[in-house]
Order: sequence, then structure tokens, then C-alpha cells
Amino acid sequence: MLILYSYYRSSASYRVRIALHYKGLPFEYESIHMLKDGGQQHSDSYRAINPAGLVPALIDGGKTLTQSLAIMEYLEETYPDNPIMPQDAASRAIVRALAQTVACEIHPLDNLRVLKYLKNDLGISDEAKSQWYAHWIELGFAALETQLASVQSNPDFCFGDTPTIADFCLIPQVYNANRFEVDLTPYPRIRSINDACLALDAFAKAVPEVQVDAA
Amino acid sequence: MLILYSYYRSSASYRVRIALHYKGLPFEYESIHMLKDGGQQHSDSYRAINPAGLVPALIDGGKTLTQSLAIMEYLEETYPDNPIMPQDAASRAIVRALAQTVACEIHPLDNLRVLKYLKNDLGISDEAKSQWYAHWIELGFAALETQLASVQSNPDFCFGDTPTIADFCLIPQVYNANRFEVDLTPYPRIRSINDACLALDAFAKAVPEVQVDAA
Repeated sequence: MLILYSYYRSSASYRVRIALHYKGLPFEYESIHMLKDGGQQHSDSYRAINPAGLVPALIDGGKTLTQSLAIMEYLEETYPDNPIMPQDAASRAIVRALAQTVACEIHPLDNLRVLKYLKNDLGISDEAKSQWYAHWIELGFAALETQLASVQSNPDFCFGDTPTIADFCLIPQVYNANRFEVDLTPYPRIRSINDACLALDAFAKAVPEVQVDAA
Repeated sequence: MLILYSYYRSSASYRVRIALHYKGLPFEYESIHMLKDGGQQHSDSYRAINPAGLVPALIDGGKTLTQSLAIMEYLEETYPDNPIMPQDAASRAIVRALAQTVACEIHPLDNLRVLKYLKNDLGISDEAKSQWYAHWIELGFAALETQLASVQSNPDFCFGDTPTIADFCLIPQVYNANRFEVDLTPYPRIRSINDACLALDAFAKAVPEVQVDAA
């Protein structure tokens, strides 16, 4: 049985929830609430599972897996049905690069602990914080929009004819962008991928609002 | 022939240089100087190669590859000699998670464009900028040190008996930490891996100071 340690609003958890649902893998949902109790991800009991104090973590039998991209690659290698990566090396490289544009260039700058540091340690205003948030999304989405235009793909997805880990990273990032009211008008391709993916069952089951720990 | 677009001080470029040297793959070095000409990564000619305006990029025949982690995975899949990843899925997941702790949790917060934004757009002091820089390294290295202690490994490497992409990410991050005089005393395991790796030919050939574009 798979156990996913997740927080409903965690973008990285959201990626893995989509992957699990898309592969049709049943899992137990263990909520790690990132705001309650001063952040349950910092508790000793959770740090025993993931010393980095980050969600998600996935338990598969005796194995504990961390980092959302590593978890999705593990799922693909271990449960190959309903593939979430293309089959040839060059295509895989494109999909990984698209996923990493979100996971390495946008999301790390806009996550909860960074926003907290900006406010509490650097004392920046709410307005400057919102500008920071939007800035990294706009920079990353502009690059993604150009990259997506150069890729052979069904218009519903980032790459090819089925969803991949690139979509699993993109859709949670669009969710965050909408939540913080970032203007997505300049990114029509990203918006159309988002609409198409959210219509699919695996994505619908993974959205923050339908998780058991949603506020 | 492989062509690597690189900047000598770019941590992500450094990772890929180690991987190429470790695999014994000859490559042509194309310098993209990130400070000269207002940042050559922003030039139209380079954006035609990588629209994200980031280094590194690797050309292999007609294919253009971006994002250092994606490039290293591509190299492993395409040129399997001198493996840089373990063979089983569970071990690969550990190595990827260690690599991503650097590539998704530390490096994105401390790279050049972020430091520029902190200074130019948020107007923070040099002292606060240094504290920011050290903070994310300390947080990430503390997590890594604990994770590394729980992994079965030759003490010279992050995982197993040979270098992997985890080491290829870690050593450039230690280089940056030293450059900004972050105290590494609390991380003995990381320091010993760094010493062992830097004694190897592939790592020595990849250090910033010996690149053609080193200042």
C-alpha cells in the first residue's frame, strides 16, 4: 500500500497526487498541515520520515521517497502502466526540462518558507511580496510559452498525445498563479493546457479543494 | 560532437561539465558570459538556443537540451558507459532526491538573477543578502547531512561506490558556499565528499577556475 504525506495546498504534493491518480495507484492520504501547530512538517515525527521537513513524502512498502520529481520518476520506473514519460531519450529530456522549468525556476522562489522569510526576516511589504511572487511566475511562464510553441504536441498537453510529468508540474503552478491573481493573458498555450488537463479525472481528483485536509 | 553552452561560475553548468568529463565525452565549450554585455544569456542569439535565457544548454547533433538535471539524465540514457546513476529504481530515487535537494531547494534561491532582484528591486543591504545566501545553503545542507547519514554509501560519495548526479550537484554547491564564506563546519559528511570528489580527474577538469572563460 502506498502512503502519501501531503498538504492540500502544497504544489509539490499536488504534482504527485496527479501522478498517482493518473497511474490508477490507490494510496492512503496522510495530511501534514503546513500552517497548523506551527507547521506539522517541522514535527519530530514527520522529520523522522523526511529530515528536510518538506512535503510530499511517499512510502512504498519499506521505502521512503522524497522530492516530487524523484517520486514521479520512481512511480514511472516501478509502475510502468499508464506512462507519464515519453519512451525515447530525446523526448524525455524535453519533458524533464519543461517540468524543471517549473520545479527549479519558479516554484522554489514562491513557496511558503520563502514568502515567510521575505516578510519576517527582510520585512518587505505585502505589495512587494506579491510583485516577487508574480515576477518569477511571469519569467518562467514566458520561457515555457516559447518552449511549448517549439514542441510537437497535441494542444491539450505540454508534450505528445498524453499527459506527462511536465503537465503534472505545470497545472499546480497555474493553480498558484490564479490563487495569487497573476495575469495569465500572455500565456494562451499554458491556459489551454490547463483547461484541457483539469477536465481529466486524474487532475480533478488531485485539486487542492477536494483533499481531506482542505480548509 | 557535443557543444556545451556554459559560464564558468554557473553552478548548473558546472554540474554538466562534471558529468561530461566523468563519462569521457569530448565537447566543445561555448562561453556565455553572464556578466559581460549585460549578460550574454539574454542575447537574441542565445535565446534562440534556450528561450529561458539560462545556462547550460547542450547541443547533441540536431538536438538542443536544457536544464542541467534533464541534460544529465539524457547523457546517462544516451551514453550509458561510466554510469552516473544507480541501476535499481529505489536507489535512483534516493540519488535523484539528493540531487534535487540542491537543485530545487538551495540553488534556485541563491542564483545570480535572484540576488540581483533582492538588491535592485527590494533594495536589501549587502549584509541581508549574505544572510539570505547562507540561510538557504544552511537549511539545505543540514537536511542533506541527515539524509546522507541514513544512506548506505562509500564515504567518498553521496550514494554507493561511484559518483552520481547527486555528487555532481553537491560539489558545485559547496564551491558556491565556500566562495560566499558560508561556515561548513556543521557538515562533516558533505565536506569529506567534497574533498574526495575534487581529487578525481573529472571533477578537477570541471572546476570554474580552469574554464576558458574564467576571469
